[in-house]
Amino acid sequence: MEKYIPFAVLACAVIALVFAAVNFYSVKKKPEGTDKMASISSKIRRGAMAYLKRQYKTVGVFFAVMFVILGVLSFFGMLTPFVPFAFLTGGLFSGLSGFIGMKIATYANSRTANGARESLNKGLKIAFSSGAVMGLTVVGLGLLDISIWFILLKFVFNLPINQITSAMLTFGMGASSMALFARVGGGIFTKAADVGADLVGKVEVGIPEDDPRNPACIADNVGDNVGDVAGMGADLYESYVGSVISCAALGVSAGLNVNGVFVPMLIAAIGIIASIIGTFFVSTKENADQKALLSSLRRGTYISSAISAVASAVLIAVLLPEYMNMIWAVISGLLAGVLIGFFTEYYTSDTYKPTKKLASSSETGSATIIIDGLSLGMLSTAIPVVIIAISIIISFFASGGASGADNAFEMGLYGVGLSAVGMLSTLGITLATDAYGPVADNAGGIAEMSGLEPQVRERTDALDSLGNTTAATGKGFAIGSAALTALALIVSYTNEVGEANLNLAITNPAVLIGLLVGAMLPFLFSSMTMKAVGRAAQKIVVEVRRQFKEIKGLMEGEAEADYESCIDICVKSSLKEMIAPAALGIIAPIIVGFVLGCNGVVGMLAGALVSGFALAIMMSNSGGAWDNAKKYIEAGNYNGKGSENHKAAVVGDTVGDPFKDTAGPSVNILIKLLSMVSIVFASLVASGNLLSLLGL
Amino acid sequence: MEKYIPFAVLACAVIALVFAAVNFYSVKKKPEGTDKMASISSKIRRGAMAYLKRQYKTVGVFFAVMFVILGVLSFFGMLTPFVPFAFLTGGLFSGLSGFIGMKIATYANSRTANGARESLNKGLKIAFSSGAVMGLTVVGLGLLDISIWFILLKFVFNLPINQITSAMLTFGMGASSMALFARVGGGIFTKAADVGADLVGKVEVGIPEDDPRNPACIADNVGDNVGDVAGMGADLYESYVGSVISCAALGVSAGLNVNGVFVPMLIAAIGIIASIIGTFFVSTKENADQKALLSSLRRGTYISSAISAVASAVLIAVLLPEYMNMIWAVISGLLAGVLIGFFTEYYTSDTYKPTKKLASSSETGSATIIIDGLSLGMLSTAIPVVIIAISIIISFFASGGASGADNAFEMGLYGVGLSAVGMLSTLGITLATDAYGPVADNAGGIAEMSGLEPQVRERTDALDSLGNTTAATGKGFAIGSAALTALALIVSYTNEVGEANLNLAITNPAVLIGLLVGAMLPFLFSSMTMKAVGRAAQKIVVEVRRQFKEIKGLMEGEAEADYESCIDICVKSSLKEMIAPAALGIIAPIIVGFVLGCNGVVGMLAGALVSGFALAIMMSNSGGAWDNAKKYIEAGNYNGKGSENHKAAVVGDTVGDPFKDTAGPSVNILIKLLSMVSIVFASLVASGNLLSLLGL
Repeated sequence: MEKYIPFAVLACAVIALVFAAVNFYSVKKKPEGTDKMASISSKIRRGAMAYLKRQYKTVGVFFAVMFVILGVLSFFGMLTPFVPFAFLTGGLFSGLSGFIGMKIATYANSRTANGARESLNKGLKIAFSSGAVMGLTVVGLGLLDISIWFILLKFVFNLPINQITSAMLTFGMGASSMALFARVGGGIFTKAADVGADLVGKVEVGIPEDDPRNPACIADNVGDNVGDVAGMGADLYESYVGSVISCAALGVSAGLNVNGVFVPMLIAAIGIIASIIGTFFVSTKENADQKALLSSLRRGTYISSAISAVASAVLIAVLLPEYMNMIWAVISGLLAGVLIGFFTEYYTSDTYKPTKKLASSSETGSATIIIDGLSLGMLSTAIPVVIIAISIIISFFASGGASGADNAFEMGLYGVGLSAVGMLSTLGITLATDAYGPVADNAGGIAEMSGLEPQVRERTDALDSLGNTTAATGKGFAIGSAALTALALIVSYTNEVGEANLNLAITNPAVLIGLLVGAMLPFLFSSMTMKAVGRAAQKIVVEVRRQFKEIKGLMEGEAEADYESCIDICVKSSLKEMIAPAALGIIAPIIVGFVLGCNGVVGMLAGALVSGFALAIMMSNSGGAWDNAKKYIEAGNYNGKGSENHKAAVVGDTVGDPFKDTAGPSVNILIKLLSMVSIVFASLVASGNLLSLLGL
Repeated sequence: MEKYIPFAVLACAVIALVFAAVNFYSVKKKPEGTDKMASISSKIRRGAMAYLKRQYKTVGVFFAVMFVILGVLSFFGMLTPFVPFAFLTGGLFSGLSGFIGMKIATYANSRTANGARESLNKGLKIAFSSGAVMGLTVVGLGLLDISIWFILLKFVFNLPINQITSAMLTFGMGASSMALFARVGGGIFTKAADVGADLVGKVEVGIPEDDPRNPACIADNVGDNVGDVAGMGADLYESYVGSVISCAALGVSAGLNVNGVFVPMLIAAIGIIASIIGTFFVSTKENADQKALLSSLRRGTYISSAISAVASAVLIAVLLPEYMNMIWAVISGLLAGVLIGFFTEYYTSDTYKPTKKLASSSETGSATIIIDGLSLGMLSTAIPVVIIAISIIISFFASGGASGADNAFEMGLYGVGLSAVGMLSTLGITLATDAYGPVADNAGGIAEMSGLEPQVRERTDALDSLGNTTAATGKGFAIGSAALTALALIVSYTNEVGEANLNLAITNPAVLIGLLVGAMLPFLFSSMTMKAVGRAAQKIVVEVRRQFKEIKGLMEGEAEADYESCIDICVKSSLKEMIAPAALGIIAPIIVGFVLGCNGVVGMLAGALVSGFALAIMMSNSGGAWDNAKKYIEAGNYNGKGSENHKAAVVGDTVGDPFKDTAGPSVNILIKLLSMVSIVFASLVASGNLLSLLGL
């Protein structure tokens, strides 16, 4: 049987890709709508593609340099020879996930708007299918990468299982680096365009959002695609692959041999099939309200989760019959993802009390809405931490962490790894509901810009508003899975270095200093990304002001704005600005390693994980709540659009933009990238450091 | 010699208190100025005293309850019998420090304004003398508490040295609890009054700051005293005592016996004498500019530090001659405090680039100034972390942490404790320069309210502006010392529980979960305190609006506002609102202890330390920079007062208020209180917990 399992996993990966392709072409063959719609959509697509191409070029240089460095290290025997190549495939597939997801999103936007002209259900189906392309591409490519490398290493190179997992662990670095570039670059692009467009358009000139007279409006829509779609895809690709390979490594160090590797791979494979089945349950009736729309999306996710849980139980019964309780680790992961998603929604959706109360803070102006929004974000960190904590405890105990056996501790940690895999197993469909959001958002923009009937705009608004909720849920998922994955990676790191060589006690000064430095890194990183948004947005503001001043007839709608120049500015500045934060993520673990040694690295990883987790949740939820508080006021509450309350809420939303779409989600990747880089350079760092020279 | 040392330390404490008394009466006998000035000052004093009395009553109930609980636990042998009493003395002395500091501050405000009528130097001298009362009271009472208890336990109860330090460690909890109440309560009071006064006065009605027509203006000035003076005093009292007793405990566990205890006590005693000498060097010439004023304050601090360093070297040479290098631990602590203070100033003073750049963000409105301010605060966390890290490394190695001896590790940690003591040794004078700030602030308010000549106001403005810088430095100090003290307390905790009973490896799930929960606590705590400020400020807004509406002639200056009612609201709401955050600090370690056990507690303490350190710096520095960016604009830059830029900067300042004066500084105390509570309940928690019941 052992021989067939990797190929079965490979087959599931291929099935996912085939389904993605089917969805891709079924969306693409839908009509695009009026000429105007097609033209706007094509402008957005061209802008997005132009960005991605130049991003890949820039990132390509980085990958080439890293390839050479890793190659040299391999040549001198400091890394296994597969690392440089796996580094490339990880980066390539991660980038490809984002590319395909974005391609379909930029096809689907006008088609969704056009579908909404017929009915709400048509609009929903197209947008969701586009999301499904993204979701299935991510899981398909992820599992493809894992299974092909496994097959190569096992059947071609005949490596023993512990060397296979050890080599595969280092593969994540390519995906992480790519993800960080995509998230940070895309995040800067989207928010620079958004903030820049709003500051001049809404505030100074007084034209509505998505107004075609605003020269930055196309850039804003491009941004939704490169940030929320391509960035998110690369991010979750990385979590997905990271969770499977770190769990596999933990399985081997727990002494479970090849079955310990197969279980996470197969749970992921099962999740793919479950996700595909789930996608068929997503549809809605005309005149569906927000709640009905949401439940139609949720139905798909819940069905997939249930299938996944049952099938995983069977799987564990077959492969690890002595450890039947492990299914609770998988289920606790699945549940934790759903629960964190729910509480993210609770804190950020205007159907619940916190965001409604936040909207009421607008009564006393922008300062109080900012204070209360920050405070809401901070408060919202508590429950996800408790959920993750409970999930860790359950997974650890369910997997025999306290059984008293020799490998009890390792088994427990394997369980924690399994819960991460469980949480991400249904990524195919959870990501589909998430990636659906920006498509609906773009569709609304296109409906507005091409002057479609108000009824269509109402429908796209309904879809978009739902998209905000699913985006919030998706972000909760991304953060939760990042925490569990990073945790599994930290443990994997300690196994790589060898626990005998480590003194990980918190009272060890190297560990303590590592913790302090690590906890500071997400703050520093967030500061860098937020400043980057600010700088890029300033450039957009200057350009938009220039166009309003210099292009005669623009304000009257008689002349067309120069959209290209705004896109060009966004492209250039986001590519320039993404370098420094990404460099921080790669260089920090190396410096800390050479100064503090491996103990310090573990401290740094743990510090970055725990403070980054809280900070990312805070930033995402503050941002989400401000956004929805503004929408709540725009819906006619607290004196509605144009009132002083609304102005205060716009300030909140503008502050929230870089919080929730640039800094917050990028921190997720940072904490994983730090671990990945540490793992790749583990043996190098283990060979010596400053503290050990000093005699410690 | 052994017999005389504790009495010598006691003598130094008494000398500090005598000098404080001398300063107290020399300030008090200065003339108060005009009747109007005396009347305003007396209103502020009465308001402040009314608050403190009611605060002590509320806190008294808490202390009574805790005394009974600790008494019962002692009765059943779960705590040493001294704990309940020491808990009381710690709380009493901490409260007394705040009380005396505030008493003199409320006498000195009108006298400083009056002194400024004669010359700048007179104003400076009075305000600084008042600060010196506070500084010397804090160190005097702190060392009094420590030395009396030591004398009692050693010479009356004849306890062995390890039991003495172990008992004294638990004493800090009283001081910590009192400090948290004082900081949180005072912080809520001061910012509720400030924000409330500004929101209606400046924004809605359009009258200047400190205008006597504003019903909340007296409450605002009262707030400066109860928050910035009494709160700060209790806070640093607690750091001071905590650093000495935790270092003493580390000395004993390193096997240094009684000399290990004497060294930190004597370094503190030396610091007192050095501080007193330093105070004589503070004076300035008339027409001194900002720089000359600052350097006159700095001169005192630098001279004290130099004396302290030299005398400590002699001390170590006599008491621990084999460990001469330990002097570098003390010096690294002294230097770290100064450096963190400098970088705090760099990031928050408008004489440097960061705050000037922040002011320029006002060009694009309040949203960008908020984003850039948050980002500035996040960025500013990096250098203090590196400074603390280097200071830990130096202290650890200088004290023989890598000597290879049996007790090498413990010796190294003792060195870290010494660096905390070193940093705080000159607290007598550093706190004096810090507590001087609110006095100058109040003096300015009184000058404004009693309509003194513009020249006087100019002088008090110069003093006040300097006060903002020293307050920033003081905050940096408070945070830095809190980090080192908390660190020493964590290590002391592990020694109390016994390392053999612990598995502190970061990969232990209990530790990891503890880290996650701990890192979240400062966020949750900050959210609670910020929300509290918001709620209390809302009540002030309603009351001020009511008075402007109902009191005829108020706006015209013909009728007097009802100041009392605003003070009353602040008192009531801050006392009510301080309960929940304080409860979090006390209950969290107990719950975590009973669920996760001692390993989890250590994780929690470390998590709270590392994330709290970064978060506190971020909040303090963002707030300070916003405040000074506003002042920079008010000084005529970027279109000056009343412009759109100014309005944007006011929003930033208003957001910064609860950041820098409530949440930020309170987090310092939280991280120490968590450790103190953990230490007191250590034996109880060690007896059993949920995870151990589950078999771990």
